[in-house]
Amino acid sequence: MTLFQRLKTAAEAEWSAYTDHSFLHQLEAGTLPKAAFQNYLIQDYLFLIQFARAYALAAYKGRTLADITQGLRGLSASVEETELHVRLCARWGISREEMEATPEHPATVAYTRYVLDAGMRGDLLDLQVALAPCVVGYAEIGARLQPALDANPDHPYADWIAEYASDQSQQLATDAVADIDALGERFLPEGRFNEVAETFATATRMEAAFWQMGLETPVGAQTLG
Amino acid sequence: MTLFQRLKTAAEAEWSAYTDHSFLHQLEAGTLPKAAFQNYLIQDYLFLIQFARAYALAAYKGRTLADITQGLRGLSASVEETELHVRLCARWGISREEMEATPEHPATVAYTRYVLDAGMRGDLLDLQVALAPCVVGYAEIGARLQPALDANPDHPYADWIAEYASDQSQQLATDAVADIDALGERFLPEGRFNEVAETFATATRMEAAFWQMGLETPVGAQTLG
Amino acid sequence: MTLFQRLKTAAEAEWSAYTDHSFLHQLEAGTLPKAAFQNYLIQDYLFLIQFARAYALAAYKGRTLADITQGLRGLSASVEETELHVRLCARWGISREEMEATPEHPATVAYTRYVLDAGMRGDLLDLQVALAPCVVGYAEIGARLQPALDANPDHPYADWIAEYASDQSQQLATDAVADIDALGERFLPEGRFNEVAETFATATRMEAAFWQMGLETPVGAQTLG
Amino acid sequence: MTLFQRLKTAAEAEWSAYTDHSFLHQLEAGTLPKAAFQNYLIQDYLFLIQFARAYALAAYKGRTLADITQGLRGLSASVEETELHVRLCARWGISREEMEATPEHPATVAYTRYVLDAGMRGDLLDLQVALAPCVVGYAEIGARLQPALDANPDHPYADWIAEYASDQSQQLATDAVADIDALGERFLPEGRFNEVAETFATATRMEAAFWQMGLETPVGAQTLG
Repeated sequence: MTLFQRLKTAAEAEWSAYTDHSFLHQLEAGTLPKAAFQNYLIQDYLFLIQFARAYALAAYKGRTLADITQGLRGLSASVEETELHVRLCARWGISREEMEATPEHPATVAYTRYVLDAGMRGDLLDLQVALAPCVVGYAEIGARLQPALDANPDHPYADWIAEYASDQSQQLATDAVADIDALGERFLPEGRFNEVAETFATATRMEAAFWQMGLETPVGAQTLG
Repeated sequence: MTLFQRLKTAAEAEWSAYTDHSFLHQLEAGTLPKAAFQNYLIQDYLFLIQFARAYALAAYKGRTLADITQGLRGLSASVEETELHVRLCARWGISREEMEATPEHPATVAYTRYVLDAGMRGDLLDLQVALAPCVVGYAEIGARLQPALDANPDHPYADWIAEYASDQSQQLATDAVADIDALGERFLPEGRFNEVAETFATATRMEAAFWQMGLETPVGAQTLG
Repeated sequence: MTLFQRLKTAAEAEWSAYTDHSFLHQLEAGTLPKAAFQNYLIQDYLFLIQFARAYALAAYKGRTLADITQGLRGLSASVEETELHVRLCARWGISREEMEATPEHPATVAYTRYVLDAGMRGDLLDLQVALAPCVVGYAEIGARLQPALDANPDHPYADWIAEYASDQSQQLATDAVADIDALGERFLPEGRFNEVAETFATATRMEAAFWQMGLETPVGAQTLG
Repeated sequence: MTLFQRLKTAAEAEWSAYTDHSFLHQLEAGTLPKAAFQNYLIQDYLFLIQFARAYALAAYKGRTLADITQGLRGLSASVEETELHVRLCARWGISREEMEATPEHPATVAYTRYVLDAGMRGDLLDLQVALAPCVVGYAEIGARLQPALDANPDHPYADWIAEYASDQSQQLATDAVADIDALGERFLPEGRFNEVAETFATATRMEAAFWQMGLETPVGAQTLG
């Protein structure tokens, strides 16, 4: 069993609450309101900017040139993904200016800053474990929603599903799982498993809260509810 | 006008949403459900642990021995405050073990990690500005709720109001305002005011979300709603 | 006058000690012992790895996507430069394995960790000011040594001089000066000039100590002398 | 064998070069020139300020309240030690103003910033291992030099020897060794021993370079030699 698999098993309830969230059921069925999706897309753009910082942190935290180069790859990919996101949002009638003028929702702040702080406080394993619910979870979700896309080529959220079901996304997830295994051998004595599992569970809860925000909160609202 | 006053004026809507929050009206009137208050107290304990780390960060960020000593004072005070909190919670029937076993709510994560990240990414001013809605806001709220306590010595939330209405709490707030002024002269060219104001407004929104959590979420729940 | 020019003027003695160092006079005259140059090259490789981390830190510290992208460019360039360095060293009979097995000299540790700490403790301006003696100084030195290369195409250190006299190196320095000016407007009230000037002067002293190491210390020696 | 003992054994040559340094032999014999000792004392004051930041970093890095409290103790002790140092220096005719106006020597920068960077990049174990050559080494040296003090109550460096031979200093070292053992169980899988050993060896080399500075460099000099 990979370390990622162990972490997922230890956080089974949190992982289900995240990957089986009502936001995703509505997205899969195509019934998710357009405004909810737009709201999510905008916050996801703000999210990606912080994720780019998290990969920069991974490069800073590197002990070897190989570590640094791996962080650089994640940072480059994140910066490129923000550009893809701008184009995706443009098709949904959202301009870059609108996105950049939107305040970060508490749910966006919660997950992104949790990752950044877990990584700065801890080691490279803490950082990658906090990133994993996003990197690996989105690929798992994409693969699960692919049949909905196959059944309906006019699916309103086809672009989104296709992106995370793509071979590239699946490969990123596979690489992340292998990376966590390698970091586990380097940084994780058995006695610290519970600590790392708590980081993983917390990060997963923050991802669930991010979907919940998509369902409940109009853009720019001040509260979590 | 102090820099703090300017920041508060620039974030007028966010400051009102925070300091006039329904949680506080119910707390003032004594109608806040006990479970909501207990939930808030537990999360506030988890919050304080991260705030201690934020003051440690202030000491790390110091350029002079005076800066370091000021961070040390904040760190000592935060660690002491966690002990006071344990005693306060004991009176409400909550044990330290229960608090430490409670997962951090996304709203707790959002504000605390926002402060830690703002401080690590930026300078001492960014850090103190992100802390200010808590330090200064709680004193402002305490002073405003004092008459409710005077009118009813059996007020169910007397301890809480008395703590933040106390001279010590008012002095801490006065010191924080003076400190932000001094840091502003050191670190803030006029052109960066908007950037710092955005940090203050975001931190204030995270505080409002923290009250909202108190109203809406049973302990340990997985989502923001 | 640019902010960089002001910083250089304020650290005139330190800047001269660095850019007029005996190591450079010997390098220019072609009389620098080969072993001294090899020792320098090896330490410079170890230095570059830490500099890559410093650019990663710049990306982490970014407030905007533009900040992050700029850090990414510096990080990519640093990682590429380590590869160029490996090829340069190969021509001098030094393998990558030998470089990676060499302990960092205290002078290498001093400058690189000073930059990393100045950047983490402070803001983006502190980081770029600490990097500037390297980025801008090497281009200034390269331009000044170019005539020695023109006069002797068989100059033993032709590669090194050509690299830092190159248009690319000069452009990097010009960009760094402009970047420091822009960061100065963002982060530097006049009252903090002395603090930033001290960072620049200290970083410049660490660069001079790095040349001194080249003259005095055999590879792997344990002391500064 | 404690983890500290294993680290010391793995860095036997570096540990000897540090703890058997000529600076110490001259100090023990009372033949160390007064100017060299004064120079050392001044740099040691600048060193302590950065060490206080390192303990603040330990508190920031804490995962539990116990971790944070331990960092707080180290920070408090360091800040107090700077005051003791000011009094010790006053007896040697060195004022606080003179110390604060003295530039940090490259050897001071090298060890202090190495510790700060090792701690920020890595975990609490990396930080404590980088601090250990100072905390544990000084106590070992103090104990070894005690007979010289017993033999000559008018020893010119009696104060210094007495401080590090004291029960308090010995206890601090004992605690640090125990702390490293505990952190090793938490953070160190066997496969990472070499990485941590390299950090210890490098930190030890930086300490040796600090003694060397005491022997060779007049206050405020610009180079390592």
